[in-house]
Order: sequence, then C-alpha cells, then structure tokens
Amino acid sequence: METITISESPKYVGETVKIGVWLTDKRSSGKIAFLQLRDGTGFFQGIIRKNDVDEKTFDLAKHDLHQETSFYVTGEIAEDKRSKFGYEIHIKDIEVVGASEDYPIGNKEHGIDFLLDHRHLWLRSRKPWALMRIRSRVKLATMEFFDKHGFTQFDAPELTASAPEGTTELFDVKYFDDDAYLSQSGQLYAEAGAMALGRVYTMGPTFRAEKSKTRRHMTEFWMIEPEMAWMHQDESLKIQEQYVAYLVQDLIDHCATELEMVGRSVDSLKPFTELPYPRITYKKAIEMLQEGGFDSKYGDDFGSPEETYLADQFKKPVFIMNYPRAIKAFYMPTDPEDDRQVICADLLAPEGYGEIIGGSERSYDYEYITNKLEENGLNKEDYGWYDDLRKYGSVPHSGFGMGLERFLAWITLQDHIRENIPFPRMLNRLRP
Amino acid sequence: METITISESPKYVGETVKIGVWLTDKRSSGKIAFLQLRDGTGFFQGIIRKNDVDEKTFDLAKHDLHQETSFYVTGEIAEDKRSKFGYEIHIKDIEVVGASEDYPIGNKEHGIDFLLDHRHLWLRSRKPWALMRIRSRVKLATMEFFDKHGFTQFDAPELTASAPEGTTELFDVKYFDDDAYLSQSGQLYAEAGAMALGRVYTMGPTFRAEKSKTRRHMTEFWMIEPEMAWMHQDESLKIQEQYVAYLVQDLIDHCATELEMVGRSVDSLKPFTELPYPRITYKKAIEMLQEGGFDSKYGDDFGSPEETYLADQFKKPVFIMNYPRAIKAFYMPTDPEDDRQVICADLLAPEGYGEIIGGSERSYDYEYITNKLEENGLNKEDYGWYDDLRKYGSVPHSGFGMGLERFLAWITLQDHIRENIPFPRMLNRLRP
Ligand SMILES: [Mg+2]
Ligand SMILES: [Mg+2]
Repeated sequence: METITISESPKYVGETVKIGVWLTDKRSSGKIAFLQLRDGTGFFQGIIRKNDVDEKTFDLAKHDLHQETSFYVTGEIAEDKRSKFGYEIHIKDIEVVGASEDYPIGNKEHGIDFLLDHRHLWLRSRKPWALMRIRSRVKLATMEFFDKHGFTQFDAPELTASAPEGTTELFDVKYFDDDAYLSQSGQLYAEAGAMALGRVYTMGPTFRAEKSKTRRHMTEFWMIEPEMAWMHQDESLKIQEQYVAYLVQDLIDHCATELEMVGRSVDSLKPFTELPYPRITYKKAIEMLQEGGFDSKYGDDFGSPEETYLADQFKKPVFIMNYPRAIKAFYMPTDPEDDRQVICADLLAPEGYGEIIGGSERSYDYEYITNKLEENGLNKEDYGWYDDLRKYGSVPHSGFGMGLERFLAWITLQDHIRENIPFPRMLNRLRP
Repeated sequence: METITISESPKYVGETVKIGVWLTDKRSSGKIAFLQLRDGTGFFQGIIRKNDVDEKTFDLAKHDLHQETSFYVTGEIAEDKRSKFGYEIHIKDIEVVGASEDYPIGNKEHGIDFLLDHRHLWLRSRKPWALMRIRSRVKLATMEFFDKHGFTQFDAPELTASAPEGTTELFDVKYFDDDAYLSQSGQLYAEAGAMALGRVYTMGPTFRAEKSKTRRHMTEFWMIEPEMAWMHQDESLKIQEQYVAYLVQDLIDHCATELEMVGRSVDSLKPFTELPYPRITYKKAIEMLQEGGFDSKYGDDFGSPEETYLADQFKKPVFIMNYPRAIKAFYMPTDPEDDRQVICADLLAPEGYGEIIGGSERSYDYEYITNKLEENGLNKEDYGWYDDLRKYGSVPHSGFGMGLERFLAWITLQDHIRENIPFPRMLNRLRP
C-alpha cells in the first residue's frame, strides 16, 4: 500500500492508500461520518461508514478526532463529483498521530488581531493556504521570466553602512562598533550589478521603519528590483508590462484553484494579460483628475483616491509617466521635454490597488549624479562607489521596483497586504 | 541593423550588428587592433583594421578607448576558432558612450582588501562575473527542484521579537519602542509553514553577529531551509542528496563556461551527481578519526581538519549521522539507539569544504519541546507559538538548512565564501 498525498489522489482512484492528514471539520449522522481533511497539498473529504470499519474505529472518528487532530488515514480513493476537487477517500482505518484539543481558530469569524496573534496556526486555514501557494508561484514565475529575458539574479546586501541625511524611515542596527541600517531598496547595488552583468534583478526583503498603519504598509516586505544596462525607459516599460502579464498568465495556468479559493475569478484576470498597458503622462493624469472633479494641480503627488480614479478610467494597469522632479528620487534624469520633470513611470493597478511598480531611467551623467548626491546629503565616503558607476564607462540604464505583496494583494483582492506574507511585520506587530 | 548582445552573436554570423560594450583590454600592432569586449552577457574580441574604417575611428580605438570605456560597436559577426567562445566582431564603427580614465582595477594582481573596497567595480571582472552567474543559476535551480518535489516557497521573517537567553551572535534592531533581532535561521517559522503547506522551504538572508574571521563566515549570508511534514530523517536525507545532485547537474548543463572560468572542471563535478552519498554515524566518524591519528573522542564537535579528513575518505559528500545532544540544537529528538544522541545529520562536502548542510528530525513531542524551551531560556511569550505546533495535531517532521555561499564556495573552489555573494558583509566590512 502506498503512502500518498491528497494532491496525488486522482492517480489512485480505486486503490487503497495511506495519507497523513489533519482534520479541518466533520459531521456525522448515524452510520456515516464525513471528515474534512487537509494534508498541506490540498483539501478533500473522507467518508467513514459504520459497516465498513470496526466499531472502535468508527467511535474514534466520531468522538476522538477534533479540529486539527493529525492522523494517518487508510482507504480507497474514489471520484467525488459533488466537490470541486473531484475526489474523496472511503476510509478503512485511522491511526491518530497528534491530538488536538480546543484548537483556537474555529470555523467562525475571528478578529484580525486574534488571527494575527495565531498566524502560526491561521496559515493552516484555506485562504492563507491559497495565498501562500500563490505567493510561492509568483516568486518562481519571477525567476523564470527574468531567466528567459537574460537577467541574472543578484542579491543586494540588507546591512548597509550609510543613510541619506534626514531619513527617518530606517531601522538602525548595531554592527559591532559601527552603525548599520537595514536596506530600504537594493536598487543602487543592482545598478552596480547591471554594469557587470547587463541585466540583473534583486528579490529579497526590504525594510521601512514607517509609522504608517495603512493597508499598503508593512515594515518588512519583499521587493523585486530589476536593473538593465544599455536600456532606455521605453524598453524598460515593455519589460515591466511583459513581466506583470507573464505573472498573471502563469497564475491562471498554475493556480486556478487557489485563485478561486481567495475569491478572484480567472476571467477577471484575463484582460491583464493583454498588452500593451495604456501609458499617460503625469500632466495628462492631472488633467484627467481635474476633469473628474479632483482638486489636483501640477506638482501634486497622488494619494490612494487619485490612483484609484486614474486606473479606473482604463480597467487595466496604467503607466503614469514623467512626474515632477520634486516628488521623485535623486537619481532620475531630467525629462528633455520639460525640465521640471524626470524620466520615470509608476504602474498603477486597477480595482483600487494603486501603485505596484515604480521605475525610471537612472541618470548616467557623472556631474549630475555627483551634484545630486551632495544636494541630498549623501557623503562621498559612503556613496562614492555609486558615483564610480558614472565615472568608469557610464551607460544608459533603467530599472524598476515591484512590491511583491502589493502585487499579490491586487491579484488576490486582499484588503491588506499583510495577508500576502507568511509572518507580517507592522508598527505594532513583531510576533509571532 | 539589429542591436544585439554578445551572447546572441552566434545567431548573427555574417551579419552587421550593433552592441553596447565595455573595453576590458586591448592590443594593437600597426594596422590592426584587438579589443577585448564585454557587455554583461559575455566576453569576446573585436578586431579593427585600419583599412576597414576611417582614420578617425582607428585612431579613436587606438588612443581613446581605455579599460572600461563604454561604447556602441558596429560590425560583422564572424567565427573565431581560436577562442573558447568561438565568435568575434569585425568592427566598422565605434561610438563612445562613457569615458573611463584610470580605472582602478588593472589586469594585474590586487590585494583582497583593495578588491573588496572596489567590489562595485570588481564585479565586472571575469571571475566575479562567472561566480555571480553561477549563484543566480543555483537559486533558480533551487526553486525548480523544490517546485518539482511539491514544496511551497515560504519566507520566514527577518525581524524577530525574541532571542534565546545568552545568545551573543544576534544583531539588535531598534524596532520603534520594542527590541528586535535579525533572524539567524528561518527554521522555526518554516516548521509552522510545513504544518500548513506540507513541504516548504525558505530562501533568504540570515544574519550572525559572529566575530569570526574564518573563510567560512560572513555576518550576512543566504540560507535555504526546507521543512517537511509527515517525514522522517531517512526520507529527508534522500531529498537532501537529490537536491545537491540536482544543483550540480544543473550547473553542468547550464554553466559549463562559467565553471571553467573559475577553474572548476565539469569532469570533477560529475561524481557528485551519483547517488546515494555515503552515510556514516557520528560514532563511526570518531573511530575513523582516531584511526587516522586524530585526538578525537566521543562528544567532540568537528573542526575543519576533522571534516576535511572525513570527507576525503569518500571523495564525495558524506552524511555524518546522529551527533551527541550537547553539540546540537534543542529541537532535535532523541536517537532511539543511544539516548546521548539526537536524530540528525550534517552533510560534509569533499575537497576541504566541510559542512554544507545541517539537518535533523524535529521532535514532535509536546512535553519534550516544552521542557527544552524552558531549559534553553526560551520564554512562553515569544516561543509559545512554537509549542503550539506540537499541541495541535503534531506530526513527524524533518528539515535541513543549506548555506548558499558555503555550497557555492565548494562548487566553485573558492578559498573564501565572500567571493560567492555580490556584496559581502563581514566583521570589518560593511562597505560598499
Ligand atoms: Mg508613488
Ligand atoms: Mg557543524
């Protein structure tokens, strides 16, 4: 008799197998009990009939199995036309492995703080299970996409020596006798990588000591930051939209069940696989907002209502291009068509999810960057290496950053990005 | 005319193309100059003949191109039987993009501190380039391997709330009004993940504030930590050796050029793809050491000379199984054959590289773990969640951790693991 997983059961119809499972729920009526089972690979139903097993086993199933009790179940795999999964197990024997009394998470509503306090257990529930599988798939698809497009995966350091003056959103680390800071972005390091390897991307945790409590902020989150040498913004935008469309298609192909479990229909995702995504200028965006009744004027950054309104006009992700310099980062080059602006773009997701990607060209002019570093209080000792990238064989280059959890929250229609990471870290949440 | 990369040039023989490149070296004699070029995707040679170009271009090539000058080169791709790569470009035109005067890294020997101070530029050299490509490939192959084996990628948090009492190797982080620590290992969190998702693995940075200055220590390094529910140690060892063999085979298949560039022959790797790897007990290892003239006795941990000697006896990675409890972690269960020992194994690489994997079963006994947490000063408030994994449906589970840079140093035959990460962090190294 083979020991298999729930996900493998379609291959074993009519065969007797053994599976290690946890109980998620049960109901019984007289001579039959229905056990809802999970094993990490999936969820299905076990049926135990009084006539098929000895009395001890039937009693055990009825009385000693509680929510999250773990046990080996032996039985025959059968088709189950009524369930989505399509298969079930007709139980012949049960061997309890781990008891479970008074499991704290019931099949009822719990407050979010209670659930987050029990995140180590909450992960076992259906929605978190599906969200974690989708997250994992997106990271794999990211690696596959960038590999196919000639990128090298390149890890930026998390411990960095220096911070821009006046930055308050950094976490300090005591580094022996020195002061270190946790990285907010791997971009500057990725630029060095691009000069060596052509096209690189980081995929790792980044940190912001923000006191924000919005649904789009965590103190620890994952970023994917590609950086491409010999590339201007127009080509970068094409890679960005291809990347997003690739991820969406990959999820449609591999995670249809999980998407459905979290309430996202595959049909609603399909339009996001169609390219190109619309592109409008920042100036046009301001006009559209004014026409839409917003009190926006040139120079403003966009808040959540503005981003939502803009993306709603297109029903697809939309690039907003070339923002005013004052609201963007120091390394962005001047827009040749309007020197108040820089060559950059944010990609706004539709459905109220706002910015998922921010990107730009990176100035490759040595004087420009030297001056900007100085203006921004970034000292030579710590940032001279970034200057060097312009001093020795500077080339046009572009890059972008995607917040993994922001992308995932959009795709999975979650209200808060904390649902899209195993153990979220926020202003008041460092445990478990 | 198409703009291509060096890696694409084999498809363009006889065609005139444009490539953005950096100069790595050049020599000229009279009417011909040989330019060594790189573009991030590869390295090849450009040949410029005085008769093929106008005088200005030939003079520019001879006098104005220096090491790391960046330029667009236009020319015809031709076969080049004398080079490993097999192709070159016959240059018709050059358009300089970025000057480079007095590039600090010459084609001569530099001290390691100088090179690490210039890591942002050193990455452009051949060996670091090859090492970074190999690293990237191993991370991709890791995701592919675990995906094929039913694992979900699962990120453990880097910011954690509590530390075992008396631990001195942690980096402290000021977390608003709380104290946090940078994670040394994602394992405990991965165990929670395995109870939800069956098989999970982390792949992320981990941190140790060790003052060690050995060739096997960095303060920031990447770990891959798989954790499998419903699994005993024997099956875990099989996954471990399959994983290592898969990585080695994948590199043979995809990175033969890079391996050769770092001095590792493909032939020397082939034996490591043959399974199973030998397994010996810790007791047997002590006997072998004693027979080999070492002053080892039961209870000792192994240092580098012992690990090197043991692995040398097999010429392959070797599992050392079931160490004394005192030198292993608190969560490992008692060895039923000798209660001084625990069920665990280290995988030692041959060729002097020592431990690359450490793994074990994890005790799934609630009383045992509760007692061990208490003995180790791990308080309920911070570690109660780990207890819960045994309280609610505990199951046999096993896991292991592989240090990415230790694995890579072995495969690429590097003296120090700092060569195998883009920007190494060590006791005296936090910059660039
Ligand atoms: Mg923004
Ligand atoms: Mg050891």
